[in-house]
Amino acid sequence: MYSLHFTAESSSNGMIERDFTLGDVPGVLWSPARGAADRAPLVLMTHGGGNHKKHPAMSGRARRLVRDGFHVAVLDAPGHGDRPRTAHDEAEVAELFRARAAGEPEGPIVVRYNAHLAELAVPEHRAALDALQQLPQIGPGGPVGFWGINMGTAIGIPFVAREPRITAAVFGQHWPDVLAEQARQITIPIEFDLQWDDEHISREQGLALFDAFASPEKSLHVNSGRHKELPRFEADSAARFFARHLGRAITTAV
Amino acid sequence: MYSLHFTAESSSNGMIERDFTLGDVPGVLWSPARGAADRAPLVLMTHGGGNHKKHPAMSGRARRLVRDGFHVAVLDAPGHGDRPRTAHDEAEVAELFRARAAGEPEGPIVVRYNAHLAELAVPEHRAALDALQQLPQIGPGGPVGFWGINMGTAIGIPFVAREPRITAAVFGQHWPDVLAEQARQITIPIEFDLQWDDEHISREQGLALFDAFASPEKSLHVNSGRHKELPRFEADSAARFFARHLGRAITTAV
Repeated sequence: MYSLHFTAESSSNGMIERDFTLGDVPGVLWSPARGAADRAPLVLMTHGGGNHKKHPAMSGRARRLVRDGFHVAVLDAPGHGDRPRTAHDEAEVAELFRARAAGEPEGPIVVRYNAHLAELAVPEHRAALDALQQLPQIGPGGPVGFWGINMGTAIGIPFVAREPRITAAVFGQHWPDVLAEQARQITIPIEFDLQWDDEHISREQGLALFDAFASPEKSLHVNSGRHKELPRFEADSAARFFARHLGRAITTAV
Repeated sequence: MYSLHFTAESSSNGMIERDFTLGDVPGVLWSPARGAADRAPLVLMTHGGGNHKKHPAMSGRARRLVRDGFHVAVLDAPGHGDRPRTAHDEAEVAELFRARAAGEPEGPIVVRYNAHLAELAVPEHRAALDALQQLPQIGPGGPVGFWGINMGTAIGIPFVAREPRITAAVFGQHWPDVLAEQARQITIPIEFDLQWDDEHISREQGLALFDAFASPEKSLHVNSGRHKELPRFEADSAARFFARHLGRAITTAV
């Protein structure tokens, strides 16, 4: 088991940001500055394809969760952020760009490449959770949330399916081809986002993936708009979902 | 045009409740006790089938909205609450109970009966809005919301389709047969609720009605569970939806 090494620390507006490495995987842990020593639930997030652990979508969501008293951790996915790209990564990304330029469907390439990344990333996420739960302000045995959309869902569904420590999860915007089978093993409460006018993922595909979850308690949020137009208020909704399920009252007016 | 007569007033926990009549239609207006003279947006609500204007689902939603600073008004629908039932009402209700007892589909009866009630209720709702906008604390020209689920949607969709004063609406849980055509005339922001395991309204029917709205900005909230199991947190979501669209900040922690 790898141990977690903190490499940098900064803070702004009540949020402490600590960079870490776990073996050769870089990550970031965001925590509330006030009561930093108090134990609080953790939400693990996974970023989208082509992004990285500190992309504004990640730091913005983290700020929302940290305000509510949670810890938030994100790893760079394989081939993303500060991690090297393999020849296979380069080839798949080139193929994606080629398909996009040619106006061909991106789905088959994204589905296959993300499944490959998930195989690598799932054990890294499990190791990160092991290490983060060693920290006194997180600790073992507490509730843990997972939040990942797009590629974050492609990694998150197999991760959550194998990881009993995750007790509530927010997913969305991916194809059912590989993931539906794994979603059928998930029984924790979930919230799932899809875009009604997604130019890549059809309504039938999005609904099929939502339908696959075995969770007795699941919610689907559909919004008008294209793939990249997921409304920002869904981040507020996800934060409230975690507050409901991880036993943490929202302490701020929204 | 009928004018509005207040017939009773009480208050509890920061909410003023005023019964009124508009011609022979009884209604209720709930308002914030604090700043009662200040102008604030109105949300018109319509209750579900078999219920009435002060059913706990109505007063609970009103309490949530009044806390956020809104006025809330509900009328008894034709044949409901303190209003007399006609022979036609009695016959339709008897037919519904017969079908239910026989295990036959309720949809065709509800669709037809609710369409009849909507014909009567739409002009009543327009007259109520006329009269309520005469009150100094509501006033003309301000943003007005509409919130109705089940029968409230069967009345609400034709009402909102014809009523340009409504600027944001929450609907849900009805069949597309009669309503989809009218929903195609609606372009304001909407939030729409449906139950994934509804024993009366199929997924295809629920999704078809959501799809019909012409609104560029629309959200669908699907939850696991049967027809009557719409989760209470959807009321919180609806209240936030109105706060976003009627220009009123939510002032309380949730």
